[in-house]
Amino acid sequence: MRINAFADVCLRALMLLSASPEGELLTTQAIADGVGTPYNHVSKAVLKLRSLGLVEAVRGRSGGVRLSARGRTTTVGWLLRELDEREDLVECESTEGRSCPLNNNCGLRGALRRAREAFYRELDGIVVSSLPHQSQMEPVFVMLHTRRPELPR
Amino acid sequence: MRINAFADVCLRALMLLSASPEGELLTTQAIADGVGTPYNHVSKAVLKLRSLGLVEAVRGRSGGVRLSARGRTTTVGWLLRELDEREDLVECESTEGRSCPLNNNCGLRGALRRAREAFYRELDGIVVSSLPHQSQMEPVFVMLHTRRPELPR
Repeated sequence: MRINAFADVCLRALMLLSASPEGELLTTQAIADGVGTPYNHVSKAVLKLRSLGLVEAVRGRSGGVRLSARGRTTTVGWLLRELDEREDLVECESTEGRSCPLNNNCGLRGALRRAREAFYRELDGIVVSSLPHQSQMEPVFVMLHTRRPELPR
Repeated sequence: MRINAFADVCLRALMLLSASPEGELLTTQAIADGVGTPYNHVSKAVLKLRSLGLVEAVRGRSGGVRLSARGRTTTVGWLLRELDEREDLVECESTEGRSCPLNNNCGLRGALRRAREAFYRELDGIVVSSLPHQSQMEPVFVMLHTRRPELPR
């Protein structure tokens, strides 16, 4: 079982931005370095986070992105629900349009959906910006040559 | 979010075998047709289900597989836990051995693990053989030209 790679990058980027000192802007390249993910993946993630209102961009030579007020309070559960475009956890309908022969009011699909809801519910209480801590983030910001965060130990 | 394709095939095959009338054997080809999945995928799934003791094979010209007593009582949660070989839901360690820079005692990893546990717990109460019902399975067994199941409506 896994969450998709795009959601993973969005969560990492949001954690890094949460850890960034007040007023600090991070470029997409800095985020990419900070979360160890290729630039083009991070670029798409930042676009998505902007469209969800979780980060704000400042243009110009010393521009970059920072967490928005909404991003400060968003939860892991909310973000994963937003990014989960799959209706089913299994391939009830294949991409070629062929259905699973067991697709008629399938009890497995219902059970998996309820389990997915339990998964998200568990994460609805987890605020992304509450996750980063100092010993996790300080080495990352040292590597990025930016101001160091001040986070709970 | 999704479960892996192999677990999906294993679950479908087990549902089909659960629905099969007492004493009936299904060939791997019949299971493949019944669950709408290529033969070679189903063949690996049947091997795995045998190694887990959930199905029994009968050799010979009119051979095939059937659910074991253990397969009759197994739950979706137990099977998915057995088939989930991933330690993390996200790529904390990439396949090239490079770690996520946020990998040091990461709160996100812990939160996702607890959520995964909530997902499995929800499915620990779901017995696979309780899932199939008549209107779902009858057309499949008609297609397979085998004895029709007698299941709850």
